[in-house]
Amino acid sequence: MPEPIDFYFDFASPYGYFASRRIDELAATHGRTVIWRPVLLGAIFKVTGMKPNLEQPLRGEYLVHDVGRIARLTKAPFTYPDSAPANSVAAARVFYWLTDEHPEQAKLLARTIYHAHWGEGRDIGPAGTVVEIAAGLGLDRAAVAAALQDQDVKDRLRAENEAAVDRGVFGSPFFIVDDEPFWGWDRLDMLDRWLATGGW
Amino acid sequence: MPEPIDFYFDFASPYGYFASRRIDELAATHGRTVIWRPVLLGAIFKVTGMKPNLEQPLRGEYLVHDVGRIARLTKAPFTYPDSAPANSVAAARVFYWLTDEHPEQAKLLARTIYHAHWGEGRDIGPAGTVVEIAAGLGLDRAAVAAALQDQDVKDRLRAENEAAVDRGVFGSPFFIVDDEPFWGWDRLDMLDRWLATGGW
Repeated sequence: MPEPIDFYFDFASPYGYFASRRIDELAATHGRTVIWRPVLLGAIFKVTGMKPNLEQPLRGEYLVHDVGRIARLTKAPFTYPDSAPANSVAAARVFYWLTDEHPEQAKLLARTIYHAHWGEGRDIGPAGTVVEIAAGLGLDRAAVAAALQDQDVKDRLRAENEAAVDRGVFGSPFFIVDDEPFWGWDRLDMLDRWLATGGW
Repeated sequence: MPEPIDFYFDFASPYGYFASRRIDELAATHGRTVIWRPVLLGAIFKVTGMKPNLEQPLRGEYLVHDVGRIARLTKAPFTYPDSAPANSVAAARVFYWLTDEHPEQAKLLARTIYHAHWGEGRDIGPAGTVVEIAAGLGLDRAAVAAALQDQDVKDRLRAENEAAVDRGVFGSPFFIVDDEPFWGWDRLDMLDRWLATGGW
């Protein structure tokens, strides 16, 4: 089996949302699986010194326009959340709590959280909202609430974030294919070509 | 005639170089011309608070890798300049000095400067180098040297830069098509589709 593709994303990132709707199908056409790895861009930006896109003059306004345009182009459900940029800590924690034992459920949960946030415009920052979304998929409400406060889960997210930085991840979405890095939703076509050709 | 496409770029930007090799042909397939508008990202970054890509940890290393990959993909002549990021003031000034009366010559000069810098790795920062490149195209050496110090030319570049910021330009390359903005070399396919469909 060829190596899986690493897919790094922040639940607060709309470009990560758009990528999440395509990457597994794209990878499958090349016989690859995808490992989803939510990260916290806020922590990564402390390393890189970048500011959140939305807070950058001109670029922030462009981004809001651009994501609506991509949603229409890709026919993705889309509601710009009043809460953006959201706090994505709880969403990332519940994902890592679930993924080792139930990777497919974790991916479904991630898709559902992404849809709630960017598809429906819900604020995914509050732990209660994340618990509610998870419960809607049949997960145990009390277990999810406990996981969000579990020190092992907190440590896992921190370790994943640090490992991402060590691999050079500085944005969302970010893909690594056989050590080859691709940054951005708008590089999915290039990634597709890389997989098809074996690189150039 | 449909409106021309505005193509904003910094001579110091490798993604601008790659875009410069494609935009006129792309536009022509849709019956459009292109107005080239060199800008100085350094001045624009003072407005947006961004740092040059190369100076950002992780992102700078990614960029160096990425531009080599794009050069191979697009079969563009490419030599990473030791001088990057170069001072692109002289290159931008000579372009604006020439473009009103001789737009096609100015575009040829811009292509030649881009090739010298990103194709051959020459430092285009020194005024003498820009004069030499212009003279190689048959332009009068003394006239070019004088233009680089001309207050009207300096003012023109400053005004162009301010007008770019007023239109929301925050990076290179940046395209505006009928008021629709596109940022980045990797958005040329989307721009192509926008022109083909009339937008969505």
